[in-house]
Amino acid sequence: MSTALDESAASQLATAPVNREEQDMRRFAVIMAGGSGERFWPASRRARPKQLLRLTDPDRSMLEEAIDRIEPLIPRENVIIATSELLQGPIREGIPSLPPENVIGEPAKRNTAACLALAAAHLEQRFGDPAELAMAVLTADHLIGDPNEFRSTVAAALDFAADQSALVTIGVPPTRADTGYGYIEVEEPVRTEELRPGNRPAIRPVLHFREKPDHSTAEKYASSGRHLWNAGMFFWSVSTFLDGLATAMPELRTATAEIVNALGEGDRGAPRVAALFGALDDISVDYGLMERAANVHVIPATFPWDDVGSWDSLTRTRASDADGNVTTGDPVLIDAKDCVIYDETGSATAVAVVGLRDVIVATTPDGILVCGKDNAQDVKKAVTELRRRGRENLT
Amino acid sequence: MSTALDESAASQLATAPVNREEQDMRRFAVIMAGGSGERFWPASRRARPKQLLRLTDPDRSMLEEAIDRIEPLIPRENVIIATSELLQGPIREGIPSLPPENVIGEPAKRNTAACLALAAAHLEQRFGDPAELAMAVLTADHLIGDPNEFRSTVAAALDFAADQSALVTIGVPPTRADTGYGYIEVEEPVRTEELRPGNRPAIRPVLHFREKPDHSTAEKYASSGRHLWNAGMFFWSVSTFLDGLATAMPELRTATAEIVNALGEGDRGAPRVAALFGALDDISVDYGLMERAANVHVIPATFPWDDVGSWDSLTRTRASDADGNVTTGDPVLIDAKDCVIYDETGSATAVAVVGLRDVIVATTPDGILVCGKDNAQDVKKAVTELRRRGRENLT
Repeated sequence: MSTALDESAASQLATAPVNREEQDMRRFAVIMAGGSGERFWPASRRARPKQLLRLTDPDRSMLEEAIDRIEPLIPRENVIIATSELLQGPIREGIPSLPPENVIGEPAKRNTAACLALAAAHLEQRFGDPAELAMAVLTADHLIGDPNEFRSTVAAALDFAADQSALVTIGVPPTRADTGYGYIEVEEPVRTEELRPGNRPAIRPVLHFREKPDHSTAEKYASSGRHLWNAGMFFWSVSTFLDGLATAMPELRTATAEIVNALGEGDRGAPRVAALFGALDDISVDYGLMERAANVHVIPATFPWDDVGSWDSLTRTRASDADGNVTTGDPVLIDAKDCVIYDETGSATAVAVVGLRDVIVATTPDGILVCGKDNAQDVKKAVTELRRRGRENLT
Repeated sequence: MSTALDESAASQLATAPVNREEQDMRRFAVIMAGGSGERFWPASRRARPKQLLRLTDPDRSMLEEAIDRIEPLIPRENVIIATSELLQGPIREGIPSLPPENVIGEPAKRNTAACLALAAAHLEQRFGDPAELAMAVLTADHLIGDPNEFRSTVAAALDFAADQSALVTIGVPPTRADTGYGYIEVEEPVRTEELRPGNRPAIRPVLHFREKPDHSTAEKYASSGRHLWNAGMFFWSVSTFLDGLATAMPELRTATAEIVNALGEGDRGAPRVAALFGALDDISVDYGLMERAANVHVIPATFPWDDVGSWDSLTRTRASDADGNVTTGDPVLIDAKDCVIYDETGSATAVAVVGLRDVIVATTPDGILVCGKDNAQDVKKAVTELRRRGRENLT
């Protein structure tokens, strides 16, 4: 944040009466689902990312959960999925209730700034005046424990963003010194009383977006009250976002306008969209826009939230049996403790785990992973090695 | 042993000049291959026991290895496989070079005394005078490290058995205090010098067959020099065996004669064989005959020998890589140490092991086992549990 507000201005903003004008805005959700999720191999594949897996709910993929979760606030015809061109087909097939044109394929692999600019361009081209479009950027690879509280928070964030022409994000009060997240730094510590369910904590100006810290820094952050986990969710009107780009990333702002025009030409404009998109910088919206912009605010989360980033996270996000095992499928467990077992081979294959502790076993009809819980991040290395051996078809 | 020979008689027997008369005897091998080998699940199944697996040699099953190993001494037309009726078909198909009539199916599940009586009856019925038939009882579930030395030992055992009308067994000098083996007790300690390759240790009278000991007893046995591992191999002429039964197990002797007659009636006699066999006691030849008989001798093994009883034994019997891993198939290993990985799923499935130590991973197209090395004996429990769940078809 190059322009931090002073404290009195902050409390003024946070307590300002909400201008109900924004009710006239149309609300859209953009769910980013472009990652490959290699850490969930063998369940996740190039053409079946983790967002399409039933990792947190046995009946729905995480992406379906994300859409169902926001639907009482934002109808699914207003939900846009931003993904890779490779995944466009699988997602359209996997979620037939979603209008196919709402699944946007990015023509190249870029970071979140380019991805959200493309999504904003789609919204402007299809729905008109950016000043009347409210945009909630959501994720599909996190566990959210209290959907009602989540929706209230999203509604508050969108209202504040519209009312104050602000860029708003959600910050999760840390529950441990995690080195795997970025942190959002604020001036005024978040007090425990603020986080009681039903309470709406003050929306605060953001001082800084901090990159993933080392362990001792993470410990300071976790106890400071002034650092919140960056959950990767953003709220703004499309016009505020585009204005922010004009200041912080002027080339991206220009390219976005050209993409709007090219999208208007339909199939004929597609090569132009691809060329424009391919020329964009590979930078996150956190550092490209949010860290540089004025009027950036954060709303502390009052709902349980956790990353579903690798197999070991299922220990935190799923119910376990009396021995601490989290299981999917019907494995035979003999003296197994604190294991994660994800079996989607079906009844034609038997899976047995005997006498082990803290081990991850994940099986599909063509892939078998056995991994120490502490090594869950290294599953990527196995995927890399499989590709090196020419077995890309299994990754 | 109810009748132990005194020491002077023992050395007299051991050094007696070999009577070459037995060269006229016809040599037969009987390989017992009836067990199901549940501890090698998922590779072993009811209809595919461990003897039919390529556990110690990537190109041959253990049973093929056993036949190939003895062949320079006993041609395969003289090799009899004693197995269950269920396994008769798979073994005949698995080893087409063996005459099909040499694969005997036991009509019921009994112990080794009944099994060997049935095999002796087959030999007598097919090949005539029991006094002219030398019978080597061998196993197919052990690793034997020096085939030449092994064959020399077998030849010496058969010669001694014929010459002295003795019941002979091979005893393996213990290399550790193993509680998983029975022990053979002798009077005179086996000296290290006796075991040098090329040397033929003295053949000793047996004092006792000892059941699997507890740990402190095993430690005494392992250091006494007077206790040898019972390797389950026996050598006798068929007539000596039948005479031994007449004294130690007279009912079994009578039944064996009746089985010879019933076998002579071909298919018509089969129900009679089944009835006779089904009525036999469930007792091992070690305790039913050897422990009770006179003139029982043991020849100390001068070849490397190890049990291949459960997955962890592959660590001892197979070469490992620089990290101590023993692998079959083409798994991806990332920071894996001292693991046993047996993958027979083929190239259509990828197996990855990440960050683990002392873990067994065994995979087939329809079974996946992940097991701590110290829990290799408990694989049986997983098989039992699968059956309880009605998934016998996978066991």
